[in-house]
Amino acid sequence: MLLCDIGNTSYDFLDGDTNYKESAKTFNPKTITKKVFYICVNPHAKKVLNELDNWVDISRHVDMKNYYESMGVDRIFACEAVREGVIIDAGSAITVDVVKDGVFDGGFIYPGIKAMSQTYKNISSVLDYPFNFECRFDKMPKNSQDAISYGFLKTLQSEVLSHNMDIFLTGGDANEFIKIFPHAKIDKLLIFKGMQKTIKLI
Amino acid sequence: MLLCDIGNTSYDFLDGDTNYKESAKTFNPKTITKKVFYICVNPHAKKVLNELDNWVDISRHVDMKNYYESMGVDRIFACEAVREGVIIDAGSAITVDVVKDGVFDGGFIYPGIKAMSQTYKNISSVLDYPFNFECRFDKMPKNSQDAISYGFLKTLQSEVLSHNMDIFLTGGDANEFIKIFPHAKIDKLLIFKGMQKTIKLI
Repeated sequence: MLLCDIGNTSYDFLDGDTNYKESAKTFNPKTITKKVFYICVNPHAKKVLNELDNWVDISRHVDMKNYYESMGVDRIFACEAVREGVIIDAGSAITVDVVKDGVFDGGFIYPGIKAMSQTYKNISSVLDYPFNFECRFDKMPKNSQDAISYGFLKTLQSEVLSHNMDIFLTGGDANEFIKIFPHAKIDKLLIFKGMQKTIKLI
Repeated sequence: MLLCDIGNTSYDFLDGDTNYKESAKTFNPKTITKKVFYICVNPHAKKVLNELDNWVDISRHVDMKNYYESMGVDRIFACEAVREGVIIDAGSAITVDVVKDGVFDGGFIYPGIKAMSQTYKNISSVLDYPFNFECRFDKMPKNSQDAISYGFLKTLQSEVLSHNMDIFLTGGDANEFIKIFPHAKIDKLLIFKGMQKTIKLI
């Protein structure tokens, strides 16, 4: 079974156990002739795929009553994969979603590493540092790099840990965020698992 | 006594009890002939003021041993005004500084309203909302506007409240942040109070 999760920058495929990406800019979906089950947040790709019979959009098979209309379909499918816990999808945005007893309980959106780094840099050139994921959180910072790292990361950590639930980490920056959520479980295939679960019900 | 706190966008004056601002772009400091005690984070203004005998930079009169070198002088003087508490200076950046028993204990830097709003908008046009300062924090959001408002504000609130100290709010956006820190004390003159304290010791 071939699955595809399409974002604004890439087509993320799962073919059996093989996970690979293609650039959204250059990839031509017509080159695939076998059946593909997909979800898509990319408006341009959506148009193209609508014309292709072998590309099957599975998003309409999710029961939407517990989600909200403008919620990204990638967040919805990650939630579908989890019975209980906090899901952190760390990409260009960081989405934090809570699932309780199999039901979406709500979630929030936080800027991703690149976006937040640019934000500090735009505020002042003296804040142009990479984030320090090893920054101590048990005492307040006394240097500029830790002052922005603490601002970006400790605030997020405090909020996530306050839910006192299992944490699932997915997305391109999961390997960075495991440093501040050491007890989290990294699962890069979480969205695909939600897709597989939904396909079984079709 | 005439005091002036100079930032990148304005000259903020305190003349007796009268507080007023002049634009950093258009104001000519030579138009003032009486003595002015000032602090300044604006590199261009610093150069101009260095040439004027009646403008007295009081930043070198602070004992720097508890602060760090690259720390903004406005943050330092706000800390000088407080004996015990968390100081939130909400402007283009939000600085959060902790003072314990009259000594700076460290602080962090978070993006201001305008910067953070632009950040979400840059991530995706579907996140282009004003922040909702009345957003409920006791349950997780289920709409896009609250999802970014919670991401920006609840994370900051959680971290600040975790210190369990008195909160002092200053800066241009203090009137917005009082909504999420209702027990805070707004003091728009905090930096001037730190300046007055220092001048008494000169």
